[in-house]
Amino acid sequence: MKGIKKRLQEGETLSGCWLNLGSSLTAEIVGMSGFDWVLIDLEHGAGEQQILLHQLQALEHTGAAAIVRVESFQKERIHRVLDLGAEGVMCPRIKTAKEAEEASKGVHYPPQGIRGVAKMVRATGFGLNFDAYSTGIRENILGVIQIETREALDELDEIAATDGVDVLFIGPADLSMALGIYGQLDHPLFQEALGKILDAARRAGKATGILIFNPEDFRVYQDMGIQLIACGSDATFVAQGARDLAKNLNCMKKTSLPKSR
Amino acid sequence: MKGIKKRLQEGETLSGCWLNLGSSLTAEIVGMSGFDWVLIDLEHGAGEQQILLHQLQALEHTGAAAIVRVESFQKERIHRVLDLGAEGVMCPRIKTAKEAEEASKGVHYPPQGIRGVAKMVRATGFGLNFDAYSTGIRENILGVIQIETREALDELDEIAATDGVDVLFIGPADLSMALGIYGQLDHPLFQEALGKILDAARRAGKATGILIFNPEDFRVYQDMGIQLIACGSDATFVAQGARDLAKNLNCMKKTSLPKSR
Amino acid sequence: MKGIKKRLQEGETLSGCWLNLGSSLTAEIVGMSGFDWVLIDLEHGAGEQQILLHQLQALEHTGAAAIVRVESFQKERIHRVLDLGAEGVMCPRIKTAKEAEEASKGVHYPPQGIRGVAKMVRATGFGLNFDAYSTGIRENILGVIQIETREALDELDEIAATDGVDVLFIGPADLSMALGIYGQLDHPLFQEALGKILDAARRAGKATGILIFNPEDFRVYQDMGIQLIACGSDATFVAQGARDLAKNLNCMKKTSLPKSR
Amino acid sequence: MKGIKKRLQEGETLSGCWLNLGSSLTAEIVGMSGFDWVLIDLEHGAGEQQILLHQLQALEHTGAAAIVRVESFQKERIHRVLDLGAEGVMCPRIKTAKEAEEASKGVHYPPQGIRGVAKMVRATGFGLNFDAYSTGIRENILGVIQIETREALDELDEIAATDGVDVLFIGPADLSMALGIYGQLDHPLFQEALGKILDAARRAGKATGILIFNPEDFRVYQDMGIQLIACGSDATFVAQGARDLAKNLNCMKKTSLPKSR
Amino acid sequence: MKGIKKRLQEGETLSGCWLNLGSSLTAEIVGMSGFDWVLIDLEHGAGEQQILLHQLQALEHTGAAAIVRVESFQKERIHRVLDLGAEGVMCPRIKTAKEAEEASKGVHYPPQGIRGVAKMVRATGFGLNFDAYSTGIRENILGVIQIETREALDELDEIAATDGVDVLFIGPADLSMALGIYGQLDHPLFQEALGKILDAARRAGKATGILIFNPEDFRVYQDMGIQLIACGSDATFVAQGARDLAKNLNCMKKTSLPKSR
Amino acid sequence: MKGIKKRLQEGETLSGCWLNLGSSLTAEIVGMSGFDWVLIDLEHGAGEQQILLHQLQALEHTGAAAIVRVESFQKERIHRVLDLGAEGVMCPRIKTAKEAEEASKGVHYPPQGIRGVAKMVRATGFGLNFDAYSTGIRENILGVIQIETREALDELDEIAATDGVDVLFIGPADLSMALGIYGQLDHPLFQEALGKILDAARRAGKATGILIFNPEDFRVYQDMGIQLIACGSDATFVAQGARDLAKNLNCMKKTSLPKSR
Ligand SMILES: [Mg+2]
Ligand SMILES: [Mg+2]
Ligand SMILES: [Mg+2]
Ligand SMILES: [Mg+2]
Ligand SMILES: [Mg+2]
Ligand SMILES: [Mg+2]
Repeated sequence: MKGIKKRLQEGETLSGCWLNLGSSLTAEIVGMSGFDWVLIDLEHGAGEQQILLHQLQALEHTGAAAIVRVESFQKERIHRVLDLGAEGVMCPRIKTAKEAEEASKGVHYPPQGIRGVAKMVRATGFGLNFDAYSTGIRENILGVIQIETREALDELDEIAATDGVDVLFIGPADLSMALGIYGQLDHPLFQEALGKILDAARRAGKATGILIFNPEDFRVYQDMGIQLIACGSDATFVAQGARDLAKNLNCMKKTSLPKSR
Repeated sequence: MKGIKKRLQEGETLSGCWLNLGSSLTAEIVGMSGFDWVLIDLEHGAGEQQILLHQLQALEHTGAAAIVRVESFQKERIHRVLDLGAEGVMCPRIKTAKEAEEASKGVHYPPQGIRGVAKMVRATGFGLNFDAYSTGIRENILGVIQIETREALDELDEIAATDGVDVLFIGPADLSMALGIYGQLDHPLFQEALGKILDAARRAGKATGILIFNPEDFRVYQDMGIQLIACGSDATFVAQGARDLAKNLNCMKKTSLPKSR
Repeated sequence: MKGIKKRLQEGETLSGCWLNLGSSLTAEIVGMSGFDWVLIDLEHGAGEQQILLHQLQALEHTGAAAIVRVESFQKERIHRVLDLGAEGVMCPRIKTAKEAEEASKGVHYPPQGIRGVAKMVRATGFGLNFDAYSTGIRENILGVIQIETREALDELDEIAATDGVDVLFIGPADLSMALGIYGQLDHPLFQEALGKILDAARRAGKATGILIFNPEDFRVYQDMGIQLIACGSDATFVAQGARDLAKNLNCMKKTSLPKSR
Repeated sequence: MKGIKKRLQEGETLSGCWLNLGSSLTAEIVGMSGFDWVLIDLEHGAGEQQILLHQLQALEHTGAAAIVRVESFQKERIHRVLDLGAEGVMCPRIKTAKEAEEASKGVHYPPQGIRGVAKMVRATGFGLNFDAYSTGIRENILGVIQIETREALDELDEIAATDGVDVLFIGPADLSMALGIYGQLDHPLFQEALGKILDAARRAGKATGILIFNPEDFRVYQDMGIQLIACGSDATFVAQGARDLAKNLNCMKKTSLPKSR
Repeated sequence: MKGIKKRLQEGETLSGCWLNLGSSLTAEIVGMSGFDWVLIDLEHGAGEQQILLHQLQALEHTGAAAIVRVESFQKERIHRVLDLGAEGVMCPRIKTAKEAEEASKGVHYPPQGIRGVAKMVRATGFGLNFDAYSTGIRENILGVIQIETREALDELDEIAATDGVDVLFIGPADLSMALGIYGQLDHPLFQEALGKILDAARRAGKATGILIFNPEDFRVYQDMGIQLIACGSDATFVAQGARDLAKNLNCMKKTSLPKSR
Repeated sequence: MKGIKKRLQEGETLSGCWLNLGSSLTAEIVGMSGFDWVLIDLEHGAGEQQILLHQLQALEHTGAAAIVRVESFQKERIHRVLDLGAEGVMCPRIKTAKEAEEASKGVHYPPQGIRGVAKMVRATGFGLNFDAYSTGIRENILGVIQIETREALDELDEIAATDGVDVLFIGPADLSMALGIYGQLDHPLFQEALGKILDAARRAGKATGILIFNPEDFRVYQDMGIQLIACGSDATFVAQGARDLAKNLNCMKKTSLPKSR
């Protein structure tokens, strides 16, 4: 546990990075790079549960807290990644307060939630610290839900007020797609939606987060009070790095081939 | 087969990139990025044979030819990666012509070599094109040996003349370490060694290659006649990308924390 | 993309094969064997998502398009296999038009569907061709739903008319089981159901498909206008090949053992 | 342990099959098909040690004994596959009696051999039957060496006489390649070599084996007294089955495409 | 198939053990240790489907029957583990008879259930014994549902009476948590719930099961008529064994360090 | 790095444990149990390199230093496990000072050794701390060689004096086997050998180590001055725990079966 929930509550802005490659090696490299948190993406990333285990193990000694995005708000998926030791869970495409509540119930043991109890799991140090873990879930485990559909915009206050929802995370790609203005984050419709989300979060005393595509936007969103700001991914670093370098090298190739070696 | 051996013979300079992460996903991403070849590194990289299979499969449809660096000049390792479909093999730390010859024998079937025959392997299209493959090894499979020890410098002409050695590849890190001037590639000792290697290759009618750390050096080495020039790796892209970005984002963080959310 | 949707629209009959072994190697072998498409089976096959990635990578350079059968019509599973690069999705046991519509919505981005957007995935060339991919989904991605329950027979026209349903695929084993005549494909009940499905598809202008157990039936079903015809599987090839061969060899064994060597 | 060594000593001819796919699933399928033994090929097959473990586990309940071909005669590789539970080891390309002896020493504990002792391994039932295993190695573990080089033909009697060599296994592809008559198994040179090998084995009281490509040859080689006769592989079954079926189906395709659906 | 369903019907008490490590090796070790059955836990354990295949293969030759706990009562997950060869399925957190019925329907083919038919799967010997398997499901496959929520206590008779429910399995950790008395198995509330479950099972002629934490409780629960009694797990053996041993060794360390070596 | 080399030099006795299961999960569990070091066994254990990576990642945050036993003294294997981040290497069956020297050369960069240089590996924090790592190898990386053959006993002083050999580790099973008195560690021959090894180490100023089978022997060997004392393994914990528990439970089973449920 790296204490990101507490740091959020104390008002810090936390930089994050996506992990899409399903690789424990790139998880470790990124985890050691200075980010406050990483998002292991099981919704659109290439990994799955077996690799998630290795990624969480690899991240343990690094400075980055691990939030795992599951592909829905199913409680079975949520408790699975928590049992493996995730410090937070992100649920995509939450449309209603009821869905938000279901997601939240998957995080917490009864009576607050309906998560099944298992002592001998990685999250509890394989039983070494079950009591500390189980009593500390409320203080330590971050519940993140994504606002990225039209439906969610109509129920923002109820979603934000849901017990166990700690962060409203804006999914810019999906949200702009849902608004019919894909990728136009400067569009008034997007800005309006953004404002409504931030207002609802503020009213409910919850934090907000966003994934940005341009590092320079960090300042902009930070100034809006968004605290969980992610940028880039292990896959992007490889793609961008490789394409830039190949282009660079190939440009230097002699156009007229030497006649002989 | 992407024909890199032929392209070398026709005098082209070919840009390459290292693959260290043992990931078929980053192999595919890098393979689609514009490099002429990639080096899958089983000497210092994180992968192993099972992943190599997946990497070679993932690279098949890309523009990059796959050379595999095995960890020695053992024939057992060489024929294994060739059976899986590698277009070239790189053997590190070759010290003598005898070692170079052993490496070469591992590439070729008798009577030239001692490679075992197996028809139903990936390299032959699982038997679909065994005849074409077996008769074409000499034209298609690239034999690369690394010059990176003191001993090799004393036997350069014999090594270069070895039948089946197509490329003398300079390992700058190891070679400079061996010369007692680690990392000082501008040092006269390194430059002298470099010159001797290029001369020996030229005398034997063989190509040369090098791994460079600064993309700008591409021009320098190309002008020397080096044709196989690699720069960067999937691991480096992630490490560099993540560290730069995290630093960038963290610098933008507000130093004085907001009092309340 | 191998263009099977277009080929279907142009009236071609396309031969296919099942992949049950969860092996990227047999995927590649079968993919190179001459079939127009393969079905990677995540409903009853032995593989899972991590292997699916490797199978899709291995199939890329072959002539066979990859359709993936997920185990339900859940949108989370559908977009996952599409993100990984499947050219089509097959959803089993569709019982109603509502289920067919849900399946279809999982394939398409808003406003037609509810698939989440992710740029840096294998399907888009890791971002290299996101625009072409996203605008081409309608033309390129094949939506296949299976008709294999009694309930579906009562709602055939509505199912066939569902936007995004491109192929009604007959599951003979399940359908005959549902009709209480398991395996009796000549039974009037099965033939009647078959006729109704083909009629409904014709009325809606959709293609049909079937899995056959006897290669000779290819002609029969082709003559009925069925275009997507699969036969055999990698698992079957091994089982049949091994059993026939072992029986053959063992029959040749000398019954009276030699007395001494 | 399936007792193949004893069955060989009693004069039985034993049918076998190659496993090249590195798949525990095809290992189990083939193991249940009626063969007396299977050869898990780590020399030219696609698998590696981790999969070998799963293959050996999957084969345990079947009727087929597992012989593992390692890629050399290194003792480190031999004891590894034995520790994992192989019933026999095949060493390829043995050229001299000295190499045969080294291979044999890797199989046996001191004083006969130099194999390291480990109690808690799969071969001993994880310690449950260490005593039975260690005292029974001589009776139960089959030592197979391959004769497939010119050098070996010159030292046949010494090789055959080597303690711990139980079977001289003829590698027809490599042997004919070494003799300069690749694939011509009817060639007098091959037949002569074959005769010499069988004679040497007979003189030394050892069994012989061969891999055949045509099932009908089983009778021929059995009549020569060869007892360990393998044919086919899981990879071949897939390749042959898929290619034959695809060709069959595609031939039935209508050449003139229907005008409309 | 190890016949545990029949043994239960004949009144035997069967000892079991949990498998949490997602390891085919520990599965095999535990399977050979004398337990009548093992529970491969996909709800809270570390494994997933690919490893499940290897675990089931490894357990085949041992004396322990394999029951797999899936994470819900979804039919898709149930038929998947059955196709792979599980002898029983355990569904956690069943709250109503309707859920129990859904779980049961996932086990059986039509008309009793809605499980899809697949011949070429591990469960049927890859097609070798499909008829025996499909007709024997009722006699051989064990349907276990867990009673561990408050809701289930209100519908016990209906749940117990559900066709296809063979065993009501008590989850003591979750049940005591649900009752607000976590871990207090001697608490009257827990004892009362226990009594009600046993009564309901008896009335419906069904068996019961429980996971115990103290081996000595085996007698107590056996005397109550509980027949499926599990204790321990592969993860627990490692954790307990390692912690006890480390503590033991470290206590023997000399407190005053020797001055020199 | 956990500083075990320094702790040895300061005279501490360090408790260790074997890891045989090839599991990152049991590695983490054992690593958190209180041992000073663990031995990941690639000589007789079930794991291989890919899993080793995950094991080393999982151990990083625990209190246990990771020593890896490779299967020989080949430099290629030694630098591989070091690149992955091992804190020490154990080479089995060292017979001569020459072999010890070769092992040692595989650990160190030139001029002391012949290990190849790679910056972007896990050991160096993926390049973050290459300088610290490379200059600190002598102080931090532990070179352990095993004395377990007759030949080694004849060259003890030379072996012990070899630069880079830090610990002479006694392999009791192999050594007693080599002496013809397998398992009789109280036998005068074994005790004599033990004494000679300890004397040679003392003369050379090197530490010693041993694997013990009975925890109580810790005191005995500690009193002899042996500092690296290992006992147990993850595989043993499972086997012993499972067998003891199954036996315990089964003994409590009612012998006379109840007549009806
Ligand atoms: Mg989204
Ligand atoms: Mg080098
Ligand atoms: Mg079906
Ligand atoms: Mg051969
Ligand atoms: Mg539970
Ligand atoms: Mg030893």
